[in-house]
Amino acid sequence: MTKIIINEVGMRDGLQSLQTLMPTSDKKRWIDAAYAAGVRHMEVTSFVPARLLPQLADATEVVAHALTYPNLVVTALAPNLRGAQNALDAGVHRIVAPISVSAAHSQANVRRTPEEMVEEFGRMRDWRDRAGRQEVVLVAGMSTAFGCTRQGDVPLSDLCALTRLVLDAGCDQVSLGDTTGYATPGQVGEAITAVREIAGAKLQAAHFHDTRGLALVNSLVAVQHGIRELDSSLAGLGGCPFAPGASGNTVTEDMVFMLQSMGYETGIDLERLIASRELLSNALPNEPLYGYIARAGLPMNFIAPAA
Amino acid sequence: MTKIIINEVGMRDGLQSLQTLMPTSDKKRWIDAAYAAGVRHMEVTSFVPARLLPQLADATEVVAHALTYPNLVVTALAPNLRGAQNALDAGVHRIVAPISVSAAHSQANVRRTPEEMVEEFGRMRDWRDRAGRQEVVLVAGMSTAFGCTRQGDVPLSDLCALTRLVLDAGCDQVSLGDTTGYATPGQVGEAITAVREIAGAKLQAAHFHDTRGLALVNSLVAVQHGIRELDSSLAGLGGCPFAPGASGNTVTEDMVFMLQSMGYETGIDLERLIASRELLSNALPNEPLYGYIARAGLPMNFIAPAA
Repeated sequence: MTKIIINEVGMRDGLQSLQTLMPTSDKKRWIDAAYAAGVRHMEVTSFVPARLLPQLADATEVVAHALTYPNLVVTALAPNLRGAQNALDAGVHRIVAPISVSAAHSQANVRRTPEEMVEEFGRMRDWRDRAGRQEVVLVAGMSTAFGCTRQGDVPLSDLCALTRLVLDAGCDQVSLGDTTGYATPGQVGEAITAVREIAGAKLQAAHFHDTRGLALVNSLVAVQHGIRELDSSLAGLGGCPFAPGASGNTVTEDMVFMLQSMGYETGIDLERLIASRELLSNALPNEPLYGYIARAGLPMNFIAPAA
Repeated sequence: MTKIIINEVGMRDGLQSLQTLMPTSDKKRWIDAAYAAGVRHMEVTSFVPARLLPQLADATEVVAHALTYPNLVVTALAPNLRGAQNALDAGVHRIVAPISVSAAHSQANVRRTPEEMVEEFGRMRDWRDRAGRQEVVLVAGMSTAFGCTRQGDVPLSDLCALTRLVLDAGCDQVSLGDTTGYATPGQVGEAITAVREIAGAKLQAAHFHDTRGLALVNSLVAVQHGIRELDSSLAGLGGCPFAPGASGNTVTEDMVFMLQSMGYETGIDLERLIASRELLSNALPNEPLYGYIARAGLPMNFIAPAA
């Protein structure tokens, strides 16, 4: 059976979009529940100044909790060297740096051009290496890889050129991120094919949003094109970028259902994963929870794959 | 460009599930709006006794209106010979007979075993031929082809065996129907491959429900396996088979967006199609409308294919 890594990003990409602040104790419970359901990759927080993202001000404590679990790959986002230093100090296994392909989005998000952000990535890499922490994986999260709400088209040639730069700067893994919910299935296949020619096996992951209802389709096309790690968020947490009903991240439990139904191995106990949504409805009573499988239930003939 | 036929089934499969009765005048407006948006295949009604489905009691009048349009392929459902006779008299171009693969569903739906339903299909065929109406296409809508809420698994061998019988009974086209929202992408590919070996080019269409969020994924996998006609419903109309938020049929406008983004030709003006949802919100103010693209809007870099 082909194994697909599910990287739960709700604690980072989900929570950072909400007005509500989730108490640290609930974040820890979420990590506990995800782990108990078999999730072994989590992007648990982002190392950014608390004044910018008060939702994630407890980054160090959350990482420390996640690190108590064996065989859990703990990832954090870091938009700059300072964040990466803090993430390293906290002991994360992977650091994702957002590298926006869209210049307009890059300026808005990190106040740097894409090329300046690659230079910052190089500084992260140097710092890590000088600290003798080569075991920490540096991921280039290629944001707005499929289009941008500010500049519209993001040419594939720009994605490829920036990927080359960030590989030269020493990144270990490349992830293609549909930050804006613009990705379409044809585009996903083309982009993966083109980036793989450049990045080879370093292209491992993809990250989609369900803004236009295509998160599962895009995830499936990514798997069909050899992607073996997918980001998603329990209950699609991540707010409504446009309007009520337009959910945020790919819904973890819907994606696990889809992948397991196709015979892919995720290592996840789907019923426990679905049950863990209760934690969110308790902790975030005013936030909408998305997803189909939790409402419709598993088909009566569904056979969970052996663990 | 590969052409994909979009068969709008909302006027039949959507409306029959609602408590609300849509006035005939609104159904005609819906047909008008769909036609104006470029839809050229519509399943406009079902020929069943009015006491069983008062929602579709105006079948003859609705068909007559649809037939005023040139180059519009008008389909109606007929569950028995009497319905098929009425559909022929009304002048439809295609008649779909629901052939449930699940014996339990077949009994509940048409009070016949699957084999008895095939015999009824043969009588429809004989009647059509004796009436000299060979130009009317008889479609076997293989219902519960992917699983059943009553009996659970529907073995692929049962689907194949019943397809053989209905081909022997003289059907012109075969459509695979996920009546219950059970289909998963791997299963869709397998079923199409197996049925194509039996039915060849007569296997043309597929019909999915979005109960578990997989309608678009299953539609895409069907297209990847050579299906060239897909059923769907404007705004996903078709009620909530399980719970609020679990929508009914594949959402037409989301599917058209997906297919056009991949370069498939649908002949549909997506902006006009999205605008036609207003007709539904006016005519059915208490019914939920589903779909992502109408809420999120087209991406700013979206280029509609040339007509």
